[in-house]
Amino acid sequence: MPTITAAQLAELVGGTLYGDGERLLRSAAPLEHASSDSVTFLANVRYAALLSETAAGVVLVSSGVRRSQGDVIETADPYAAFVKTLVFFHPEVEHGAGIHESAVIASDVQIGANVLIGPCCVVQKGVKIGDNSLLEAGVFIGEQCVIGNNCRIHPQATIRHHVQIGNRVTIHSGTVIGADGFGFAFESGRYQKIPQIGTVIIDDDVEIGANTTVDRATMGETRIGEGTKIDNLVQIAHNVRIGRHCVIAAQAGISGSTVLGDYCRVGGQAGFVGHLKIGDGAAFGAQSGISHDVRPGEVLSGSPGRPHSVWKRIEAALPRLPELLRRVRRLEERVGIGSGEKEKERA
Amino acid sequence: MPTITAAQLAELVGGTLYGDGERLLRSAAPLEHASSDSVTFLANVRYAALLSETAAGVVLVSSGVRRSQGDVIETADPYAAFVKTLVFFHPEVEHGAGIHESAVIASDVQIGANVLIGPCCVVQKGVKIGDNSLLEAGVFIGEQCVIGNNCRIHPQATIRHHVQIGNRVTIHSGTVIGADGFGFAFESGRYQKIPQIGTVIIDDDVEIGANTTVDRATMGETRIGEGTKIDNLVQIAHNVRIGRHCVIAAQAGISGSTVLGDYCRVGGQAGFVGHLKIGDGAAFGAQSGISHDVRPGEVLSGSPGRPHSVWKRIEAALPRLPELLRRVRRLEERVGIGSGEKEKERA
Amino acid sequence: MPTITAAQLAELVGGTLYGDGERLLRSAAPLEHASSDSVTFLANVRYAALLSETAAGVVLVSSGVRRSQGDVIETADPYAAFVKTLVFFHPEVEHGAGIHESAVIASDVQIGANVLIGPCCVVQKGVKIGDNSLLEAGVFIGEQCVIGNNCRIHPQATIRHHVQIGNRVTIHSGTVIGADGFGFAFESGRYQKIPQIGTVIIDDDVEIGANTTVDRATMGETRIGEGTKIDNLVQIAHNVRIGRHCVIAAQAGISGSTVLGDYCRVGGQAGFVGHLKIGDGAAFGAQSGISHDVRPGEVLSGSPGRPHSVWKRIEAALPRLPELLRRVRRLEERVGIGSGEKEKERA
Repeated sequence: MPTITAAQLAELVGGTLYGDGERLLRSAAPLEHASSDSVTFLANVRYAALLSETAAGVVLVSSGVRRSQGDVIETADPYAAFVKTLVFFHPEVEHGAGIHESAVIASDVQIGANVLIGPCCVVQKGVKIGDNSLLEAGVFIGEQCVIGNNCRIHPQATIRHHVQIGNRVTIHSGTVIGADGFGFAFESGRYQKIPQIGTVIIDDDVEIGANTTVDRATMGETRIGEGTKIDNLVQIAHNVRIGRHCVIAAQAGISGSTVLGDYCRVGGQAGFVGHLKIGDGAAFGAQSGISHDVRPGEVLSGSPGRPHSVWKRIEAALPRLPELLRRVRRLEERVGIGSGEKEKERA
Repeated sequence: MPTITAAQLAELVGGTLYGDGERLLRSAAPLEHASSDSVTFLANVRYAALLSETAAGVVLVSSGVRRSQGDVIETADPYAAFVKTLVFFHPEVEHGAGIHESAVIASDVQIGANVLIGPCCVVQKGVKIGDNSLLEAGVFIGEQCVIGNNCRIHPQATIRHHVQIGNRVTIHSGTVIGADGFGFAFESGRYQKIPQIGTVIIDDDVEIGANTTVDRATMGETRIGEGTKIDNLVQIAHNVRIGRHCVIAAQAGISGSTVLGDYCRVGGQAGFVGHLKIGDGAAFGAQSGISHDVRPGEVLSGSPGRPHSVWKRIEAALPRLPELLRRVRRLEERVGIGSGEKEKERA
Repeated sequence: MPTITAAQLAELVGGTLYGDGERLLRSAAPLEHASSDSVTFLANVRYAALLSETAAGVVLVSSGVRRSQGDVIETADPYAAFVKTLVFFHPEVEHGAGIHESAVIASDVQIGANVLIGPCCVVQKGVKIGDNSLLEAGVFIGEQCVIGNNCRIHPQATIRHHVQIGNRVTIHSGTVIGADGFGFAFESGRYQKIPQIGTVIIDDDVEIGANTTVDRATMGETRIGEGTKIDNLVQIAHNVRIGRHCVIAAQAGISGSTVLGDYCRVGGQAGFVGHLKIGDGAAFGAQSGISHDVRPGEVLSGSPGRPHSVWKRIEAALPRLPELLRRVRRLEERVGIGSGEKEKERA
């Protein structure tokens, strides 16, 4: 693992060191597990009590925070500084190159430089794989797929035919890209399959978690924009288009032909009906249910989704609803109105 | 790809051609991507503006719709006609036959005519596979399974032991049929596994999407009825019975022993508790939560699920709840009733 | 299959036999499918009518229940007794031992006694596998994993590198243990990956269903406590800690760093935000949404989650909300208050 001095680390993270610049640091660790040659951080005042107990060589802290004894690096954003530290100590592992003898590769596959294809992978005809890409064990790549440079396809991922994947894309285990969209026409009492003849395009720097599904388009393409990050067990239906630099948390689902702009944030288990248009920078709470178009920058919560502030007020008022029924009945008695119940029965 | 004249297409879809019957057509495409030898359709008036721009050779339209220039086929249901057109241009691809040398097939497996078993498939002892069926790469078929004719099992699907699958069944990648049901008995502070000794039966013409799970029964069978279509990431628990010609959208979940009738429609992320009886033709909104038996033809929305019209009225009224609290307080002041708040405190 | 006499069965389940102690029993079956040499049970009075029709040799019943003709074993908990009967007739199948020739096993892997590794499995370097464990077909075990004794890893499960699994752990097909947590830092308009350098520890006697995901920790560990049972399609995010003997139903999701105590019960499709602390014995309804810490033993329902009794009252009152709006308007008219609507417009 790489090493760094405290002075070098301060420079790397753009912070100010209060302590021994020569101290040699060998790892990054959480406050409670850090030792004298490791770096940790304090971003949340809730954990300030741990500051006097940690054995860490250096703690990344925000402005003015000091330890009773021990060194700190002061920085505007200790967590961001810690992420830089983690990246320094854990650079992407270089994989080897070569094709495992158990992999089944069609004869016309084009494979770039420094590509590793692991055991039991299957790569069908017409596929192109760019430089430095990694297919771990048991990966399936269907006919005519294009995989860019520096991609990492983790064990047991499935990429169906004709899918196009850009550069520096990571796809985790069990994920299925390019299965048929869910399209059926109801005729004479039966559902007839609508051919799903489109494909999926995944742009550069996308990461997709484990056991997620991204369906191919009926016609044209399902598309995941550059830099977007998708978590585990997410459903992306046919002809959905996700913009650039979105984040979509686990178990969210986006129905057919819905279009998300750039920089959208989708909470876990949120759901979108089909054919919606979602503006740039919109954000959606966990378990929200979205059934209308959304303007750029809107923040929605609840199911059905409402502006977050409206939803908060409704949620706060809801527990008082049973009491409100009693109060209205009392008011009606006082002013001599026949009870609402009776009124309802007459209706 | 097949070709067809405009006159032949009109006959195929049961429509009336206004234009050149000899025009040769080679593909189906969306309005914005169609060229002079392709067929497109206009089903939604929202897209009528595209009608004057499309380069399509022929547009399938509803009664009375015409292009400023260019041919149309008039038909009662342009989308259904387009689906027929898609099916014409994209018939099911014939797969070859044979068993890949890397597949691991038990010696007593019975394999029908014209079956293709791809690389890295594993087929265990006692399995029967019907004619014309396809097992793509990395498929697992457990002991004593029966797979019918003309089935398509996509890469990395898992069918556990003793499962029975009918004819013309499609199962997409990553889906697991016949894992143990989630059954445990709590005893002396620990959960003891209840043996799951039943199986799964999947009837003819069923299609099941990617990364879905259909658990085996505790005893007896979990059953998916003829013609039913199930989307991605759906959970079908042990002893569930789904009727014929149902559609179940992505991420829906149906708990143990619940029985759905025929022609039910289940929205995305909907959930059913166990042991329910759901009548034929019932429909369920996205994210609905169903915890009671449902009569045939009922349409439920929301969580907990309510008749759709009731739920719509509640949803419309909810944003006014905070205001209602204020109005009732004002009424109480006016008529001289001690505030509900105080009443509540005394309670 | 094993056989047992009625007298021996009564002793096994701790019940009292009314009938022929010598009767030989060969199977366990549901009421409607039982034959003269099989055992069934009646736990729910709803099915009492079946009691006079069943052909079962013996029915396990609760106190005082008798058949018009036929034998019974009386017991305090007929269902628990039936589970014991099922376990007796269906003991865990002994698997063979050996490594299939198509499996790819690194040269330094340590494999215990009586281990079976099936076709197309991949086991990477540094892995240790305990005695009597089973890896079915197509299982992936990443570098430096430790698998305990008597584990069952079902077809196509994926265990990524450095994961530690205890004894008697069952992992079903398609499940992914140890994929990267979903951690990204937003910087200069892009999401930068935070290295996920932690791991997953799964304690003894855990069972995890199909197509579930348990992510590795950012640092430290994601942990599943002893005896906990997790259903299909569940998401367990990085650094989550689940206590001992919890049950988590299908499609539930638990976000990063949330800690569940022992004996918690989580309903299907329930969701937890990150960084929560959930007390021992807490229970959560299906589709509940939990966003605050929870005390031991609390029972929450709804989204957002509320104490179950509060939620029930709200749910019961909700359908009356539209009517309440009308009643309040009538009250305002009666006492001569300007309508709430106008008040709102002025606001």
